[in-house]
Amino acid sequence: MIDVPTLVEQARQGRPRAVARLISLVENAAPQLREAMAALAPHTGRAYTVGLTGSPGVGKSTSTSALVAAYRRRGKRVGVLAVDPSSPFSGGALLGDRVRMQEHATDPEVYIRSMATRGHLGGLSWAAPQALRVLDAAGCDVVLVETVGVGQSEVEVAAQADTTVVLLAPGMGDGIQAAKAGILEIGDVFVVNKADRDGADATARELNHMLGLGESRAPGDWRPPIVKTVAARGEGVDEVVEALEKHRAWMEEHGELAARRRRRAADEVEAIAVAALRSRMGDLHGDRRLDALAERVAAGTLDPYAAADGLVDGLTGA
Amino acid sequence: MIDVPTLVEQARQGRPRAVARLISLVENAAPQLREAMAALAPHTGRAYTVGLTGSPGVGKSTSTSALVAAYRRRGKRVGVLAVDPSSPFSGGALLGDRVRMQEHATDPEVYIRSMATRGHLGGLSWAAPQALRVLDAAGCDVVLVETVGVGQSEVEVAAQADTTVVLLAPGMGDGIQAAKAGILEIGDVFVVNKADRDGADATARELNHMLGLGESRAPGDWRPPIVKTVAARGEGVDEVVEALEKHRAWMEEHGELAARRRRRAADEVEAIAVAALRSRMGDLHGDRRLDALAERVAAGTLDPYAAADGLVDGLTGA
Repeated sequence: MIDVPTLVEQARQGRPRAVARLISLVENAAPQLREAMAALAPHTGRAYTVGLTGSPGVGKSTSTSALVAAYRRRGKRVGVLAVDPSSPFSGGALLGDRVRMQEHATDPEVYIRSMATRGHLGGLSWAAPQALRVLDAAGCDVVLVETVGVGQSEVEVAAQADTTVVLLAPGMGDGIQAAKAGILEIGDVFVVNKADRDGADATARELNHMLGLGESRAPGDWRPPIVKTVAARGEGVDEVVEALEKHRAWMEEHGELAARRRRRAADEVEAIAVAALRSRMGDLHGDRRLDALAERVAAGTLDPYAAADGLVDGLTGA
Repeated sequence: MIDVPTLVEQARQGRPRAVARLISLVENAAPQLREAMAALAPHTGRAYTVGLTGSPGVGKSTSTSALVAAYRRRGKRVGVLAVDPSSPFSGGALLGDRVRMQEHATDPEVYIRSMATRGHLGGLSWAAPQALRVLDAAGCDVVLVETVGVGQSEVEVAAQADTTVVLLAPGMGDGIQAAKAGILEIGDVFVVNKADRDGADATARELNHMLGLGESRAPGDWRPPIVKTVAARGEGVDEVVEALEKHRAWMEEHGELAARRRRRAADEVEAIAVAALRSRMGDLHGDRRLDALAERVAAGTLDPYAAADGLVDGLTGA
């Protein structure tokens, strides 16, 4: 039996095992989640969350690790959440590969956790916000959310943060890849990592062009900075932190931080509501009703919209 | 004004522009979709659908093109649907890159269409099945559904087909990548393309091992074949078609084809029903209600589950 109030109390005191167990509840969409979130909610709102995304090979986990070090030098308590929406494999395995993270593994002021969310009921719209709520209540000043791939789900996760960092590296035809994946539009801060390699300036220029940074903007608009780093040697990482702090200050000044957090909460609430409706639909009709309708749709004797009406009407009493 | 009955009639006669316009309705989640699907439904059930997925660089579009040629030699009418779940960009651009597809562009018995589904309302659960319904009603004997990436969404799309082909290539550390992306479990037929390169046999062996093909299976179980191809030269492609035909025959014999199609229809119906509920939720409360709840959740004064209850209860009359 999991005693949720005790777990929450221990997590608030910063005990790593309690934090880990609460995030496991999120990962497994456990029944105790509702109680846990209700108990955690009053203790949240303090952590600043930074999403990191970019193609494989740009150095995401090296950059994450370097950012952890930079925030630790500033005395901040840091959480790292590595989200892999396409993996069914949990926890340790993923981070086991991440040698660079291990330098922080014994630091009591750093929580590192990977989360597999493939098949998560209700999907990503609530998994990351709920895990963030745990790390927030545990007293993290900053939470770095790193996604493993660059599919649509990964981009959605990274975009749920307060500030989103898009990483690129020279010579990967990366600008076009990034544009195709739709990640240019979610970047608040851009990092060209591996800047000691040939082509770093070209990548930065291409990015500058694609973002239209040469064009004039309305005064007060945020102008995404492009920072060059060599994360493996820690070069440029302080500049990234400065860019993040500037973006945060800009958001606070323009009411954007509160707006983003409201949007994130709205997505989460809506996802939970839809999952609740889906579950009631199942309770009401059982799977047999859906199966019978699906059989007729597959045979072409019923169209899918009429079948959906059949499911919905009973539920809403129409 | 789009005259849906005329479009559907023209699509059934095989007119490419009508087919294209109907698929655009799907892509744009247009209001006429409901009428179109109802009119198309009675004319479906004939097309055999094949999903193709694999990492970038394995030669997916070359393989798709080679399969089109192989089916054309057998006198089949072929549809190709290239689905890009992470792209907001529509139609032409994507296929414009695909030089190899152009050899089929003037063949009146081949329909080639790319579909961007990012931001598609209700998501992928219905976009691909609806586009398949159009191509099915247009008289395609075979529809090849190629996904562009290997994110979770792409894998889901490929798995919606009657038969799913997973492509690999030598020397990409591909087996492990494929396992991580969860694509091994959805493959009915495996293709090791670029088999003239070093390491093709090793890749096939590794795959054989990971799939546990050496182990004994219950009699009657499907044993996914591994076919080696050099798609760019058309080598091995007839063997892929043979493997597909065998899988189809096996599915028909074991009732699996009908079961898969029922499952696909059930997913589609459920997705439409959930979208309808979501829309009614919006009608009932307006966005202001959700915004007000989200504001309290963001502030930590309300937990997200209680907020979701607030949304759902009004809808179901609880």
